[in-house]
Amino acid sequence: MTAPRSICFLSDYGYEDDFAGACRGVIARFSLDIRVIDVTHGIARHDLLGAAFVLRNTARYMPDGAVHLAVVDPGVGGPRRALVLRSAGDRYFVGPDNGVLVLAAEADGGIAGAWEITNRELFLEPLSATFHGRDIFAPVAARLATGLPPAQVGPEIDPAGLVRLEIPPPRVTKRGLRATAVLIDRFGNVALNLNAERLDAAHLGDPIELVCAGERYLARLARSFVEVRPSDIMVLVDSYGQVALAVNTGSAEEVLGLAPGDTVELRRLS
Amino acid sequence: MTAPRSICFLSDYGYEDDFAGACRGVIARFSLDIRVIDVTHGIARHDLLGAAFVLRNTARYMPDGAVHLAVVDPGVGGPRRALVLRSAGDRYFVGPDNGVLVLAAEADGGIAGAWEITNRELFLEPLSATFHGRDIFAPVAARLATGLPPAQVGPEIDPAGLVRLEIPPPRVTKRGLRATAVLIDRFGNVALNLNAERLDAAHLGDPIELVCAGERYLARLARSFVEVRPSDIMVLVDSYGQVALAVNTGSAEEVLGLAPGDTVELRRLS
Amino acid sequence: MTAPRSICFLSDYGYEDDFAGACRGVIARFSLDIRVIDVTHGIARHDLLGAAFVLRNTARYMPDGAVHLAVVDPGVGGPRRALVLRSAGDRYFVGPDNGVLVLAAEADGGIAGAWEITNRELFLEPLSATFHGRDIFAPVAARLATGLPPAQVGPEIDPAGLVRLEIPPPRVTKRGLRATAVLIDRFGNVALNLNAERLDAAHLGDPIELVCAGERYLARLARSFVEVRPSDIMVLVDSYGQVALAVNTGSAEEVLGLAPGDTVELRRLS
Repeated sequence: MTAPRSICFLSDYGYEDDFAGACRGVIARFSLDIRVIDVTHGIARHDLLGAAFVLRNTARYMPDGAVHLAVVDPGVGGPRRALVLRSAGDRYFVGPDNGVLVLAAEADGGIAGAWEITNRELFLEPLSATFHGRDIFAPVAARLATGLPPAQVGPEIDPAGLVRLEIPPPRVTKRGLRATAVLIDRFGNVALNLNAERLDAAHLGDPIELVCAGERYLARLARSFVEVRPSDIMVLVDSYGQVALAVNTGSAEEVLGLAPGDTVELRRLS
Repeated sequence: MTAPRSICFLSDYGYEDDFAGACRGVIARFSLDIRVIDVTHGIARHDLLGAAFVLRNTARYMPDGAVHLAVVDPGVGGPRRALVLRSAGDRYFVGPDNGVLVLAAEADGGIAGAWEITNRELFLEPLSATFHGRDIFAPVAARLATGLPPAQVGPEIDPAGLVRLEIPPPRVTKRGLRATAVLIDRFGNVALNLNAERLDAAHLGDPIELVCAGERYLARLARSFVEVRPSDIMVLVDSYGQVALAVNTGSAEEVLGLAPGDTVELRRLS
Repeated sequence: MTAPRSICFLSDYGYEDDFAGACRGVIARFSLDIRVIDVTHGIARHDLLGAAFVLRNTARYMPDGAVHLAVVDPGVGGPRRALVLRSAGDRYFVGPDNGVLVLAAEADGGIAGAWEITNRELFLEPLSATFHGRDIFAPVAARLATGLPPAQVGPEIDPAGLVRLEIPPPRVTKRGLRATAVLIDRFGNVALNLNAERLDAAHLGDPIELVCAGERYLARLARSFVEVRPSDIMVLVDSYGQVALAVNTGSAEEVLGLAPGDTVELRRLS
């Protein structure tokens, strides 16, 4: 017998209620040998963009072969599909078909298979209309972790038809780069959909001019918080390799007035 | 050797402090083989009603034979008793004698045994006056999980003498039903002590008139959030089979001004 | 093969983001047999004093031989050293050299060994500038848990050179005692760097006069909350043996205006 795959659990369930706990119980009812790793349940409610990037960022720090259970599900009870994706890197991703899973599977070598969850024998009874994390996604994740072939959850589907998050890719502009704010942490650091290589290639110099909602700011290119003065705005490469905006001893979210999905321009001075 | 029972841990300890963590450590000191499942530690401080309903709702989603450790304990250090209950469904419930355990044990087939925890050999030394979760309840739960017969925690007691939460049962009225708000989640959804069968039997029609603190509201009978318009008040059956009040993209708690223990009338229009 | 040591994980990472989750994943990648016990991740951001006392208080409730991973790291990316301490009680403490580890190791029989983490073979690649919990401390903790001798993390160093938190020891004054507020919980209870023995030896009587920032208050000496009236200020010995200030059904932090590091005088009346 092989050891079961770990389940890495991410949601917007928060910590006040029993939502995440009920899912943990459901998994434990299947097998106490499955290791459940809570990635976070603190995703802002219905923040698909944030959840998708956290899932993509953290996947490679999780055990090989893990089942990634990601439940941010504003459309629960409606017609949205329930999914299992398998990546070329042999990870499973289980959650709703609303874009939350795709980025991570693509970053892990690409989508090697996609299935719609339709096999009602895998669901808990009675099936609720509002808590598919507990009644569909957790039991399916537990079955996959203990060896169920994904073809048994339902029909294989074409990855081309999956719902995707609509964010424009970063673009080179005349004076620099245009990117999108995708992930804001509790310290107000704002990660962009831009990686270090693209930033370097743009040769923006230091300081960099930021334009957010028509307002201009001067930012320092820095490796870490200890290099700059209090209140300085910084452009840095964060711990997941994303270009991020930060304010030393402050909040870039507040100072720059940014929300997920907002456009940010990074410009060369002169 | 049999595998130990799981411990399903619920409290109002929150996440900022080390209270839940210290209890987890105490359990791990007894045996690293005990699986601890955190149901939630986000129960509002001293909210016995909420804790009792969360415990009752989640128990059947937890592993069979689990030890349910439930610590919401406003009377700690006073004369309240410490309890072990065993349900007919072979679950143990460990916590204070203040009503937090009884509903769940009764819903799991009924109370098959009740013991007062008095055996000081099971307590941690020094025994604190304010942290019985760590010093009494966690070590007793760990011992039960690893096979201690409950009769060794102290004398068997009469379940008739247990402290019970005083909430009136739902009542049929001339125009519909009168129920009590028992559980409010972080989204402001308000669960009542009323199940789907009783709601159906009352034939209230759709829409339903709600009366909360003398004020009247019109609510839609709905299966899920996707069926109604933004800001609609809804009566729905929640994922635990409880009738609940919700507001689409809003908070029923705020809109209806409800708190746990408040009376709600559901009336037929006409 | 011996069972691995448990890892007891404490940080100021909070619960909203994936910081703690990423560290849990890194540990699980090393070995799924390591039991991770979350002590708390709710330490106030950069609160070294609070973290040091929580670590000291909880260590003895954690499994023998545990690896205590404690990450509160305002100087990450700067010149502060990364440490492994071993206590005479055979616990390991892993974290930054900023005072967060020393109190706990000294309370566990004293520091039996100290090593600076410099062996880059143990670090994750690429090494980030801002997330050493994931890239340095978690992998080192996982290696120690699975048997790596501490000498392999880097050179042994002199404990005399470790950074220590600067708080004055409690002092006997003409009319009583002078102590320091070190730890405030989410209920506003304020623990002092003063233990029960020293309080008893001072024979302060009951009530006790408190002086905080020049203001005087009258406090009752109490064993628990059930002994006093609502709103009473209390001096009590908390569950970790620390003298603490509390307000029944209120917050001593707010009523007395205290913050970690503040001086409190406890005086005999008359």
